[in-house]
Amino acid sequence: MIGNVSFPVEPWYLRECGLDPQLLARSESLFALSNGHVGLRANLDEGEPHALPGTYLNSVHELRPLPYAEAGYGYPESGQTVINVTNGKLIRLLVDDEPFDVRYGDLRSHERVLDFRAGVLRRTAEWVSPAGQAIRVSAVRLVSFVQRAMAAICYEVEPLDAPARLVVQSELVANEQMPPQSVDPRAAAVLEAPLQGEWNGSHGAYAELVHRTRHSGIRVATAMDHVIDPLPGLGVTAESDEDSCRITVTAVLDAGSTLRMVKFIAYGWSEQRSLPALRDQAAAALTAARQTGWEGLLAEQQAYLDDFWARADVEVDGDAEVQQAVRFALFHVLQAGARAERRSIPAKGLTGPGYDGHAFWDTEGYVLPVLTYTAPHAAADALRWRQTTLPMARERARTLGFSGAAFPWRTIHGEECSGYWPAGTAAFHINADIADAVVRYVRVTGDDDFERDVGLELLVDTARLWRSLGHHDLDGDFNIDGVTGPDEYSAVADNNVYTNLMAQQNLVEAANAVRRHPDKARELGVDAEETASWRDAAEDMYIPFDEKLGVHPQSEGFTRHQVWDFEHTRPDQYPMLLHFPYFDLYRKQVVKQADLVLAMQRRGEAFTEEQKARNFAYYEAMTVRDSSLSACCQAVMAAEVGHLGLAHDYLREAALTDLRDLQNRAVDGLHIASLAGSWIALVEGFGGLRDIGGTLSFTPRVPEGISRLAFVLSRQGRRLRVEVTDSTASYVLLRGDPTVIVHHGEQVRVSVEQPVCCAVPPPPSWPPPSQPHGRQPVRFRINQ
Amino acid sequence: MIGNVSFPVEPWYLRECGLDPQLLARSESLFALSNGHVGLRANLDEGEPHALPGTYLNSVHELRPLPYAEAGYGYPESGQTVINVTNGKLIRLLVDDEPFDVRYGDLRSHERVLDFRAGVLRRTAEWVSPAGQAIRVSAVRLVSFVQRAMAAICYEVEPLDAPARLVVQSELVANEQMPPQSVDPRAAAVLEAPLQGEWNGSHGAYAELVHRTRHSGIRVATAMDHVIDPLPGLGVTAESDEDSCRITVTAVLDAGSTLRMVKFIAYGWSEQRSLPALRDQAAAALTAARQTGWEGLLAEQQAYLDDFWARADVEVDGDAEVQQAVRFALFHVLQAGARAERRSIPAKGLTGPGYDGHAFWDTEGYVLPVLTYTAPHAAADALRWRQTTLPMARERARTLGFSGAAFPWRTIHGEECSGYWPAGTAAFHINADIADAVVRYVRVTGDDDFERDVGLELLVDTARLWRSLGHHDLDGDFNIDGVTGPDEYSAVADNNVYTNLMAQQNLVEAANAVRRHPDKARELGVDAEETASWRDAAEDMYIPFDEKLGVHPQSEGFTRHQVWDFEHTRPDQYPMLLHFPYFDLYRKQVVKQADLVLAMQRRGEAFTEEQKARNFAYYEAMTVRDSSLSACCQAVMAAEVGHLGLAHDYLREAALTDLRDLQNRAVDGLHIASLAGSWIALVEGFGGLRDIGGTLSFTPRVPEGISRLAFVLSRQGRRLRVEVTDSTASYVLLRGDPTVIVHHGEQVRVSVEQPVCCAVPPPPSWPPPSQPHGRQPVRFRINQ
Repeated sequence: MIGNVSFPVEPWYLRECGLDPQLLARSESLFALSNGHVGLRANLDEGEPHALPGTYLNSVHELRPLPYAEAGYGYPESGQTVINVTNGKLIRLLVDDEPFDVRYGDLRSHERVLDFRAGVLRRTAEWVSPAGQAIRVSAVRLVSFVQRAMAAICYEVEPLDAPARLVVQSELVANEQMPPQSVDPRAAAVLEAPLQGEWNGSHGAYAELVHRTRHSGIRVATAMDHVIDPLPGLGVTAESDEDSCRITVTAVLDAGSTLRMVKFIAYGWSEQRSLPALRDQAAAALTAARQTGWEGLLAEQQAYLDDFWARADVEVDGDAEVQQAVRFALFHVLQAGARAERRSIPAKGLTGPGYDGHAFWDTEGYVLPVLTYTAPHAAADALRWRQTTLPMARERARTLGFSGAAFPWRTIHGEECSGYWPAGTAAFHINADIADAVVRYVRVTGDDDFERDVGLELLVDTARLWRSLGHHDLDGDFNIDGVTGPDEYSAVADNNVYTNLMAQQNLVEAANAVRRHPDKARELGVDAEETASWRDAAEDMYIPFDEKLGVHPQSEGFTRHQVWDFEHTRPDQYPMLLHFPYFDLYRKQVVKQADLVLAMQRRGEAFTEEQKARNFAYYEAMTVRDSSLSACCQAVMAAEVGHLGLAHDYLREAALTDLRDLQNRAVDGLHIASLAGSWIALVEGFGGLRDIGGTLSFTPRVPEGISRLAFVLSRQGRRLRVEVTDSTASYVLLRGDPTVIVHHGEQVRVSVEQPVCCAVPPPPSWPPPSQPHGRQPVRFRINQ
Repeated sequence: MIGNVSFPVEPWYLRECGLDPQLLARSESLFALSNGHVGLRANLDEGEPHALPGTYLNSVHELRPLPYAEAGYGYPESGQTVINVTNGKLIRLLVDDEPFDVRYGDLRSHERVLDFRAGVLRRTAEWVSPAGQAIRVSAVRLVSFVQRAMAAICYEVEPLDAPARLVVQSELVANEQMPPQSVDPRAAAVLEAPLQGEWNGSHGAYAELVHRTRHSGIRVATAMDHVIDPLPGLGVTAESDEDSCRITVTAVLDAGSTLRMVKFIAYGWSEQRSLPALRDQAAAALTAARQTGWEGLLAEQQAYLDDFWARADVEVDGDAEVQQAVRFALFHVLQAGARAERRSIPAKGLTGPGYDGHAFWDTEGYVLPVLTYTAPHAAADALRWRQTTLPMARERARTLGFSGAAFPWRTIHGEECSGYWPAGTAAFHINADIADAVVRYVRVTGDDDFERDVGLELLVDTARLWRSLGHHDLDGDFNIDGVTGPDEYSAVADNNVYTNLMAQQNLVEAANAVRRHPDKARELGVDAEETASWRDAAEDMYIPFDEKLGVHPQSEGFTRHQVWDFEHTRPDQYPMLLHFPYFDLYRKQVVKQADLVLAMQRRGEAFTEEQKARNFAYYEAMTVRDSSLSACCQAVMAAEVGHLGLAHDYLREAALTDLRDLQNRAVDGLHIASLAGSWIALVEGFGGLRDIGGTLSFTPRVPEGISRLAFVLSRQGRRLRVEVTDSTASYVLLRGDPTVIVHHGEQVRVSVEQPVCCAVPPPPSWPPPSQPHGRQPVRFRINQ
């Protein structure tokens, strides 16, 4: 049993049949539960074996010094690292004095199921102890979307063949021993015992621990309570010390009878609230959950997800793996963002400590586009979080010598935590990505209050940054020099096309928003001279073009650089950042991830059809996809320029990044942005969704391997269902006023009463592009 | 007395009258003694008060980890830091049980004189103890140029008014307590107690200590012996422990009689030699020195310096400060290089721990041009040191993915120690600077053996580096992308003109040297294909030019960048690197130090006269001289394009950098390259020396404030004296065969029998250039 594992393809579940200790870390990430507020890695209930124990509370972090071999002005001195907080999911089991441990005895069966519609993780195991006692363990675990502080586990044990003495120890453990640190620079710094005990107590089946982080001063309260089905001779005892609490349940059961215990776990944390206040907060959450009861929590969870899937589901016929993957992806994207609520959405959500638990541009660039159409409240909250960090971003801009706000490249709390400025501070595009997310959210929801109270300030401060970052040259062109674009294998270059186009949009949209909210804008000190200077800068924005090659250089001078010698780069030399110096990567034509291609996706109206096709082919030949942020963008643009099979391959790469662990990095958390990318590849790629200006536009076209694609979008009170086959696209307005959409350039009116069905024209025909030697995506074979 | 200090201007001495505790650190650097092998800061004999105790042995360093907030491939993991070794210069004095300490009692007079011709530091002090006992202390200190392991001190005490009991404690002290570390990133890392005791012993007036560094494993032996003039009742005792040795001399002296002690100090160190071998080595050096005797050491020192000044002296009439400064400078340049002997010449020589004791391109770029004409054996040895580090440089090139050798940006032992690659590894020009020093040395000395055995290998390996670093583009141009030139306020740019021109020369000269030494070249694996590819690359080398502005951009795109807002940069915001982020400095037109201007100095034949004048004016307006490596280059090019007054100002800035502490950085050591720069400014600037091709060429012209300039040069067995006034230049061949030189473009034959005198034409007339707001050099006023 052990060592043998399979993941059958099913549309609404991720199922693990069997258990492989080598794959534990990945499964801990894949099956993680979260609501964006509390996150539990899928560690086994009994704690061991484990790869990486993990319980995360959004924004709970510790500080650590950022060292530099040679310091420089403006380098951040303090880093922030997500910490593994008190583990509340531990339930140890003794069977006749033998600990239930899958590494010993005989594991007859083991199955875990992540149910995307129910929002629970189910586990069943049949195990025979070394002494020959057979039992069945069933556990259902959830992190509530509705009661955000709560996790709960329904734990059942049944002796199968003979009476058994069972001892169940339900625990809270702080400062768990962690496995040794990875040497990969992208992994997290491990902090030893970050929690200092402040309180512990227990009574009945209730226990609580309060700790505080040493340097960041965040107080964390964890409490648990239990409901145990009555059984003859049941014993319950409770105990606690500084770093652990234990509720012990004992019973002797006949074969076929079941010990059933529901464990409720509540978390509360704050930088400010007192110890009694936090104890009360956790206790209150527990009380409410007990009142709701296990069945009640399940029902709330189901209802929450029914609503989500009605707004968000994507149906894919013909590629069952992608069907499963996109639902898995949407489920995890929702888990990352649903209840983040003015805290960040980290690159790995709350599924693991990768990237130190930091949020990057991934959130605004990849996750929010999906949430905006499917769970807009979560997108709004993520942007409200950015607004709360404006004081820090403004101070950072002052430190660097600029106006407005300079948002951090990576952070948990709001301060810049990047210790390598060429791929951190210099990547100013994050500010335009935030502005872009604001503009998209307002456009899609029509939420005017949000624009006035949240969006305007973000737009104004980012516009001010761009105005002070760029300059008009003697020809009048507006240049933004020395910045780093999305591609991290180039850095500190002039006039990055992505950055300039996104900054241009930022400047214009800020000026437009000021016009819509003149009073609020005055409060922010904006006058007509300032908005005019933004419009001038946008108008004069310089976009380099290589006339000789007929393509846009990613940044100025890029296309004159030497092309990387892909022929002599071995497969084991990827990802390249671990095998070549930045010095050499930066100076050659080699692209880690979509940059100019992303510019064409986001600002398509700035390129001609021919430019798109030529640019796509040019960059395709040098993009190595060492980042999980690339494949989905390549899928979208491949689809747009007519390379539908290639787009399908990239869709699959994005969708299967974590399920197949293509980046070999799922161990310390899922790539939430890449997961979001599977929706992007389907909806923006094969759906051809573009939302520029006032009208939704589609250029739907499915590849040979997908016979039908259907998705739902919400926009300005309407809900639209789009369904695409190889020959037709139908648009069904599920709710809301009639509207006009654009299908392959033609305006089409659609109302609840009148769905429309349009023919899909054949794709444009450009020569097939090639990829760097050895970096072709895996080809999808029909009926594979 | 205390707190009141003056430095009178004298042609052959640096004299300090009085003593200011606030200026101790600077004086410790200015009056430091060294022979390039052993260096002693001018700490007071009695040890305290001190600013920075310092005794340095060339290449004796300790390792320390180089930390990175975000690590990257190819980042050096281990740094090297010069350490303060066993202090042998300590002589404490008790006068009637009262320690001689200038902070107590009454210091009637205190004078220190650094004698550039005698090569000694003389100190005299008259002091009245708090108990009223008046004494005179005289000490003469030297570090021998002839016996390289040796320092010696002749120490005399005389009671002035009444008999006194004197106790003299002559000591060796290891692991001295050091003052707290500076936060300036350019300062050294302080290592606590870097020496581990291996041996100590004493007998008679002899004592010795042997230690070893913890991580670098360098064994250091220090021994002292004493000759004490006989006196009635003289007592001598010796003692030692792990970190100190003490020889105590006691006597009761009448007023007017003198206690005279000569202390000999010997150092020996090795990574390989055993403890007994090193003890013997130090003891042998001591024995030889005792045999020579104090007077003998003085005589050797004088003879060594007589020879040096005959080859190197520069006479300046009209500006007495510059006269003093250039001799001070030449003395310290000699001290830094004379006996370095296949070890490095650090940026601060052996005068302090600044820059961690590292050697940079300063050595080949600034120091060796002076030594090559004045003390060529020292230049040869410095290049032989580079040759010994070739295995490390080749390994570094392999790590980075290139052919040939990549010499370290900063090092003591040979490994790259730069922890910030954009201003370290990326500054590949150091390889061309080394090649340039080889070519100059061979041209000036005609040393064919050196070229074959040392130079060829350095030229070949650096040429190979350039060939692999650059690439031919589609137009056939050879580009060197993504490198950092001399100006550290720009980084990682394409086609830096200085780098490309120096690489071009490197490639051509390597090919030429291969032709002269075909057998040796074959041993190095060079064939005709390879040298042809070097010549092709040199031929096709791309040199950007801004046609609109009519100037060379320092690097591609530079002249399109925004010009720094100098108007709003406050005086307290210099040096800018401590007040602005690299991000912003790199992307704007602001120049820390001569870069394109240095290219015009080194490769003048690659520019037209008009380009030189226009380029000089263009860069003058944005060069802030936050580096001490800039003023001398600006002096040379200002003189060439006819701005003689400005050149004089820059000459003074270079010459007085440390004497006046213009960079506020003399505390942790002298700027050896800037000191060398005072010779460069005079000889290459007002002498107009250029040594390109086969013939020495001069364009002499003195500014109004200098009535006469005379200097001596040695070249290919000849010694030439050049004397310039406002109207004439005379060329006197002091020894060697007749030769042809060029005076202002005209060939002139000069022989020992026939000196020539030529008229000096008026300078070219270009509009006066301007400097950044507030960064004008201090103007020299005639008869100031």
